Amino acid sequence: MPQFVLTLACPDRPGIVRALADGIVEVGGNILDNAQFSDPGTGMFCVRTQFEAPEQDAAAIREVIEGKVSEFRPMVSLRAVDRKYRVLIMVSRLDHCLVDLLYRWEIGEMPIEIPLVVSNHKDTRPLVERHGIPFVYLPVTAGTKPAVEQRLFDLVAEHEIDFVVLARYMQVLSDDACRKMPGRIINIHHSFLPGFKGSKPYHQAYERGVKLIGATAHYVTPDLDQGPIIEQDVVRVSHGQNADSLVAIGRDVERVVLARAVRLHAEDRVVLTGNRTVVFA
Amino acid sequence: MPQFVLTLACPDRPGIVRALADGIVEVGGNILDNAQFSDPGTGMFCVRTQFEAPEQDAAAIREVIEGKVSEFRPMVSLRAVDRKYRVLIMVSRLDHCLVDLLYRWEIGEMPIEIPLVVSNHKDTRPLVERHGIPFVYLPVTAGTKPAVEQRLFDLVAEHEIDFVVLARYMQVLSDDACRKMPGRIINIHHSFLPGFKGSKPYHQAYERGVKLIGATAHYVTPDLDQGPIIEQDVVRVSHGQNADSLVAIGRDVERVVLARAVRLHAEDRVVLTGNRTVVFA
Amino acid sequence: MPQFVLTLACPDRPGIVRALADGIVEVGGNILDNAQFSDPGTGMFCVRTQFEAPEQDAAAIREVIEGKVSEFRPMVSLRAVDRKYRVLIMVSRLDHCLVDLLYRWEIGEMPIEIPLVVSNHKDTRPLVERHGIPFVYLPVTAGTKPAVEQRLFDLVAEHEIDFVVLARYMQVLSDDACRKMPGRIINIHHSFLPGFKGSKPYHQAYERGVKLIGATAHYVTPDLDQGPIIEQDVVRVSHGQNADSLVAIGRDVERVVLARAVRLHAEDRVVLTGNRTVVFA
Amino acid sequence: MPQFVLTLACPDRPGIVRALADGIVEVGGNILDNAQFSDPGTGMFCVRTQFEAPEQDAAAIREVIEGKVSEFRPMVSLRAVDRKYRVLIMVSRLDHCLVDLLYRWEIGEMPIEIPLVVSNHKDTRPLVERHGIPFVYLPVTAGTKPAVEQRLFDLVAEHEIDFVVLARYMQVLSDDACRKMPGRIINIHHSFLPGFKGSKPYHQAYERGVKLIGATAHYVTPDLDQGPIIEQDVVRVSHGQNADSLVAIGRDVERVVLARAVRLHAEDRVVLTGNRTVVFA
Repeated sequence: MPQFVLTLACPDRPGIVRALADGIVEVGGNILDNAQFSDPGTGMFCVRTQFEAPEQDAAAIREVIEGKVSEFRPMVSLRAVDRKYRVLIMVSRLDHCLVDLLYRWEIGEMPIEIPLVVSNHKDTRPLVERHGIPFVYLPVTAGTKPAVEQRLFDLVAEHEIDFVVLARYMQVLSDDACRKMPGRIINIHHSFLPGFKGSKPYHQAYERGVKLIGATAHYVTPDLDQGPIIEQDVVRVSHGQNADSLVAIGRDVERVVLARAVRLHAEDRVVLTGNRTVVFA
Repeated sequence: MPQFVLTLACPDRPGIVRALADGIVEVGGNILDNAQFSDPGTGMFCVRTQFEAPEQDAAAIREVIEGKVSEFRPMVSLRAVDRKYRVLIMVSRLDHCLVDLLYRWEIGEMPIEIPLVVSNHKDTRPLVERHGIPFVYLPVTAGTKPAVEQRLFDLVAEHEIDFVVLARYMQVLSDDACRKMPGRIINIHHSFLPGFKGSKPYHQAYERGVKLIGATAHYVTPDLDQGPIIEQDVVRVSHGQNADSLVAIGRDVERVVLARAVRLHAEDRVVLTGNRTVVFA
Repeated sequence: MPQFVLTLACPDRPGIVRALADGIVEVGGNILDNAQFSDPGTGMFCVRTQFEAPEQDAAAIREVIEGKVSEFRPMVSLRAVDRKYRVLIMVSRLDHCLVDLLYRWEIGEMPIEIPLVVSNHKDTRPLVERHGIPFVYLPVTAGTKPAVEQRLFDLVAEHEIDFVVLARYMQVLSDDACRKMPGRIINIHHSFLPGFKGSKPYHQAYERGVKLIGATAHYVTPDLDQGPIIEQDVVRVSHGQNADSLVAIGRDVERVVLARAVRLHAEDRVVLTGNRTVVFA
Repeated sequence: MPQFVLTLACPDRPGIVRALADGIVEVGGNILDNAQFSDPGTGMFCVRTQFEAPEQDAAAIREVIEGKVSEFRPMVSLRAVDRKYRVLIMVSRLDHCLVDLLYRWEIGEMPIEIPLVVSNHKDTRPLVERHGIPFVYLPVTAGTKPAVEQRLFDLVAEHEIDFVVLARYMQVLSDDACRKMPGRIINIHHSFLPGFKGSKPYHQAYERGVKLIGATAHYVTPDLDQGPIIEQDVVRVSHGQNADSLVAIGRDVERVVLARAVRLHAEDRVVLTGNRTVVFA
């Protein structure tokens, strides 16, 4: 039987789970995995349910379920598990995150489609095209930034992109661009936020003498490096490592943290509540 | 409003979640936290639900809910959150896990009651009694083991013990004793199982030259060190540490791993499926 | 044979290791463990050597070795391994770090002497005195702070204290106090610095939605939470934990990180190079 | 100035460090990094020293130093840092470790040369050749194994291979083959040894219900999965992951652990003492 993933978020009130369960039963569904959470901070309730149901249109299922839960005025998403999200990857010169995402995608580990890769440098074109993925070169200068961002969103529309991944894309998006796809642009920052915001975080980390370095995957917002955090991890370092060594060690954390965040988002496991994320891992 | 925790396990079939949600609505409940899992390996469905409901008897709530889900023939447990489990702790001479559990209990971090501590040595009596907890000295010799175990289970009955924690209790329980309280005796083994079963695991670890050592909290079964694992963790070591250093380093992992396992069990977050555990962390 | 630990730091120049080895041979010593490091950032060379040598006065050994290396104008420390450092512990109300240090000390895991514990609250007096350690109550108000700090340094002098441990001591030391014992006051901060400086770091961490929380042990300097870092660690948390849960989870990291830092310092494994530490773990 | 790495291992006796320091001074050297260790278990002393010295032949330096330390009858290795080890990589079908090693090599992170890759399958040929590295296809059947191994050692001799890396090479080497290059063949095993030796370790891990899975890089010996461990690491898993998910998660640990082990060996940071390794990280 085909599987579906539903997420739902609304103000918390009694009866929402029964209404949802009613809807799933009505479409002949059987719940395989379910996780829900009531956030005391915001009073929000959110749930992620994976269920199997007889062959039918996702839109039809969604309509039935939305009918059952309409009084709670929830935000609902429903996706057939075999309908993979379409992801646009952006990258600059450093390609370790891109290489990693493409490899995972190639061996079937990452449940996404990658209709295109966009870069402000030409360096990664051969790599991208070798994977059979179109590469779009969009150089950025101070003057062309608005036009470039317009072109970017045209590409998003044209290719029906579900979300964007900044895989070490070193240009800061304008506030407008950040606001256009809230919760749909994932960035990897090469530090354990909120430590070492801004540029050259490994050099900052070296100067400060930290004993662990990390990486943070977060949704992009107009506040630089302040968006909701999806995933973080760290690795131990020592006095023996200089800033360059930290850069090399950090690559391993960056690519794993970004890959986890992309997978979590691609499997509808991340729900936003204010500036925090609920992650149904 | 008072809160309740329900766990339920049964063969997986459609409709169980709705039936359960029906029951919770019927007692006026509002779900705060819910996690469920269908185990493909065993075909078992299990769920943990925490909900608030108007003041009423837990038994009454349970009856209503069991009525709703009876066709699924589930195993159900229901507990009012403020009804803490009663735990009997057993210990031998090494007291680091006991000290840790008592401290967590004392500062209100560990949601259990500790009606008594049992030991085959007298060493920890002052520590235990300083916490206002009765201490029972039950020395064991080859000949007295059956009588001692009988006395132990009498204490369990008399003090209405919900589960037993072997906090570095160095006597092996008889098969009969293990079978009497399945899924209700937690042991801490001082290695990352299945590596280094049996005695002197740190010395085995030193000989083998492993780069990480660990600890494992598991339910006790007649097969020594083979019971279902609740929690594990590891810590990095180096060639510079001899077996004695590993013992010292290992204490930190043991006490944290055991404390996590006890808390998980005390909060009804562990469900057994065959020889594996589902942990709703 | 008795063992000795020597540390030495000086500007890096060829020949220093041979001169040092000469000295050790001259006192009949045999090196058991040795680690050294040339810091490219500061041009400093530092070394920690543990050696055994026939029974003799540490001062005599030191004189011989300093004679050999004098041309390098190094800072040298030498300690007989069985001469334990004398540590003054300061604490406020939260006692988890103190409890932990005292337990480790009691079972012989922490190679220090604890001549006294000082607190600005009376809460921990029974705990401290039960361990046979004098407890000094030094309450602090805005007006008495200078006098209290004077009393503190009198106690340091009187009890021949080698270093001070702030085990969740919630008063900020004055700049003067910080400068009096550079590299000899260890603080535990309850966040992964440089993130969440200042007060209520767990509440800051909750608001920011980080996926790992941590603790940092560092030497105290006049710049609050900016001193050289000795040790850090983190633990994973999730959206399900509120600020209070983070406080509880953080206790486990704090006590382990502080204990490691105290042990590292007590074993002469930490050398300062500017605002960074070289840790010979 | 050019840099050199020296490692030395011998029975522990006083004077060895001075003799070594004498040698380094005699060749005009300045020690940059030094770590040594006396293993109480075996009575072995071992040291790794990195030093800079005026331009000269490594063999000449070695001769001077060996002259100084000859009375200790040590095993000595000396390498100019810019003389990279030549590594033969073997692989079967699963290419994640190979992809990872080649990427690190390509971006200059892995200080080795890779004169050729050998496989018993043709799958990875395009990948390897795209990196400009010769690919040798050596299929193995029960009957051809001795001939294949002979061919392998011919390639080792012909290409002046320093060490061999089994990057998920799924054929067991014969005892003879293992003995021919002791301490010079590195294997990655996809479990946290000594748990789950042999085949299908992730399936074993799933059955056992462990809460962490791991990977182990070790030197190959005739005892399968029993050789000296160089590096290990683990990652947390949950009941929600089936054996296939563990395989996917495990890939991340395998490639990082193998890469670390190769780098450690390539930088002469691993010294064998019996069946254990001293790792000067």
